Amino acid sequence: MKLTVTQENLSQALAVVGRIAGSRTPLPILNNILLKTDKNRLLLAATNLEIAITQHIGAKVESEGSITVPARLLGEFISNLPKSNINIEADGTNLKITAGRYDSTIHGMLPDEFPALPEINNGRQVAIPAARLKRAITQTVPVVSRDETRPILTGIFFHTAGKALTLVATDGYRLAERKVDKLDGEVNAIVPAQTLQDVVRVMPEESELVELLFDDNQVRFLLGDIEITSRLIDGSFPDYKQLIPKKSDTEAILAKEDFARVTKIASLFARESGGSVTIKADASLGQLQIHSVASQLGENTSTADAEITGEGQVALNSRYLLEALGCVDEDNVRFAFSGKLAPCVLSGVQHPKKQSSDYLHIIMPLKS
Amino acid sequence: MKLTVTQENLSQALAVVGRIAGSRTPLPILNNILLKTDKNRLLLAATNLEIAITQHIGAKVESEGSITVPARLLGEFISNLPKSNINIEADGTNLKITAGRYDSTIHGMLPDEFPALPEINNGRQVAIPAARLKRAITQTVPVVSRDETRPILTGIFFHTAGKALTLVATDGYRLAERKVDKLDGEVNAIVPAQTLQDVVRVMPEESELVELLFDDNQVRFLLGDIEITSRLIDGSFPDYKQLIPKKSDTEAILAKEDFARVTKIASLFARESGGSVTIKADASLGQLQIHSVASQLGENTSTADAEITGEGQVALNSRYLLEALGCVDEDNVRFAFSGKLAPCVLSGVQHPKKQSSDYLHIIMPLKS
Repeated sequence: MKLTVTQENLSQALAVVGRIAGSRTPLPILNNILLKTDKNRLLLAATNLEIAITQHIGAKVESEGSITVPARLLGEFISNLPKSNINIEADGTNLKITAGRYDSTIHGMLPDEFPALPEINNGRQVAIPAARLKRAITQTVPVVSRDETRPILTGIFFHTAGKALTLVATDGYRLAERKVDKLDGEVNAIVPAQTLQDVVRVMPEESELVELLFDDNQVRFLLGDIEITSRLIDGSFPDYKQLIPKKSDTEAILAKEDFARVTKIASLFARESGGSVTIKADASLGQLQIHSVASQLGENTSTADAEITGEGQVALNSRYLLEALGCVDEDNVRFAFSGKLAPCVLSGVQHPKKQSSDYLHIIMPLKS
Repeated sequence: MKLTVTQENLSQALAVVGRIAGSRTPLPILNNILLKTDKNRLLLAATNLEIAITQHIGAKVESEGSITVPARLLGEFISNLPKSNINIEADGTNLKITAGRYDSTIHGMLPDEFPALPEINNGRQVAIPAARLKRAITQTVPVVSRDETRPILTGIFFHTAGKALTLVATDGYRLAERKVDKLDGEVNAIVPAQTLQDVVRVMPEESELVELLFDDNQVRFLLGDIEITSRLIDGSFPDYKQLIPKKSDTEAILAKEDFARVTKIASLFARESGGSVTIKADASLGQLQIHSVASQLGENTSTADAEITGEGQVALNSRYLLEALGCVDEDNVRFAFSGKLAPCVLSGVQHPKKQSSDYLHIIMPLKS
């Protein structure tokens, strides 16, 4: 293998592909990146056996071939080089890299030992506007469970609901549902949250459309020259629709910024009580009141103006509430609850009283 | 105690003073900040018994008094409030804080238990341009030893050399000397590096002159409304002048950026060898060559153009060399050494061959 690439292209591709290499693996070859000529391009690939990322970059190929080398060293070396052409030559398991006044040899391994890259045949294909997919992932990922004993909840559920592709995540205490885009036909797959975070991380800024390819066990995201292929999580996602209240007794509509500020301040006094804050809706005053107590440190009561229907109070984990508010796009939010035990519903409001139908966030109350 | 302050002033002062509170202390009251009326101002103070920081802010004082409250909670609470007036009232050990729609009570402690703030009488006074002092600290702090068994080397030596205030630090492997400003009379004090980092951190942007006040055991930095008082480190600083070579056999003058880049790249291949890189000066080629080898990973040779006098090679810790280059202000540096064992000297060059006299950095070679 002998070829020339630009420093910019190689450095960018190593940043995209390299991060998968060496993450959580006892197998030495998985610390390496595969470099392989593919006609007049260079293929870079890395895998941790759950996720594989590949990228093609333009290259002037003098002779074909392939090699694997440590991803971290190669990435750091190339990223520190000045912008120029880089000459790459494989000699057995040695990779010689020359760029102007920088000469290096990196010891690698033969590509035979590198795992075969996953293939998807006859998959179901879906195209989604890139910006909508990205936002939908960031609006559902915070709610994904970190509990590996329930693997299903460590993924995001991609499915068709009401003729729309819908993403859902839940950790049992809260739930986020985001309608992404119109979709004909069926999708039903649980994608590991880690895969989706990688998709968001490597999505090129100029992407307009992302293509997804599902088979029974895998999903592939096609992002221009980059492909991410991941196993799906096996199993059935819980029937989450039954968790979403159809109506609520008490409803407050208020500015998201106000709600976030009073919650943040109340949370400072809620550290001794596991983040618990009490929210009280007062229709006659037109106020949402938040109260928290720390027996050692002190207590706090803050209020925010709100349009209120009904009365009542509920205790919530302030961190969950803050994360939920951070997921809402709109400037105004609708916060609805029914007594102290039923799930609370948070959603964005585009104009007062008009409920946004794209995003819903559910939080279970704390016992108070 | 009853008074009104602005959120901006109080929040800024708590950020300055609060960080000292609760750092490395088993004494509960040291987690607190002292609030005390002082005529028409509010004094805020915190101490860890080694360093004390105070700041005065403007206040509308209705009744005098003092209280201590947990620094962290107060700081976070105030910083999250919107910009407005804040009413503060002490009631025994409770501090009531009201700001618009935010009502809080913070439980504190009586000020009687708070340590007396340090006083300096009849000290030696020195005034230094703020920007020069700040840069001199950041140019010497990286070299300070972290080894608490030799306390003298954990401080920076402030002393008079050649009618200039001079700052020196060494950890036994390297040394940095910076001439700060002309000075009549004598200064001779070892100031803890931690104190100086706090000085840099809290120095107001608009500062023009910093006043220093030394007595036998303490130093005080006066930074407008902020005062930092610290114990000095007891003992004699080593006679460092004998470590600085008067002349060197080999000298290279080159662009700092080039030197830093080849060193950074070489350091990637030097991880197995404790960061060791070999630097070779070749006068006939007009090149400084850097070489590093990792038996497992590979090897690297990089070169940079340089004006070279003499020949030779020396092995250095690449991290030390990179930190030294980061301390130099000028775009060109002079790198001088004599064989493999004598200390290397790095300094800035304002024009080729004209040596900068303000800053010197010494690094001991590694055995190669």
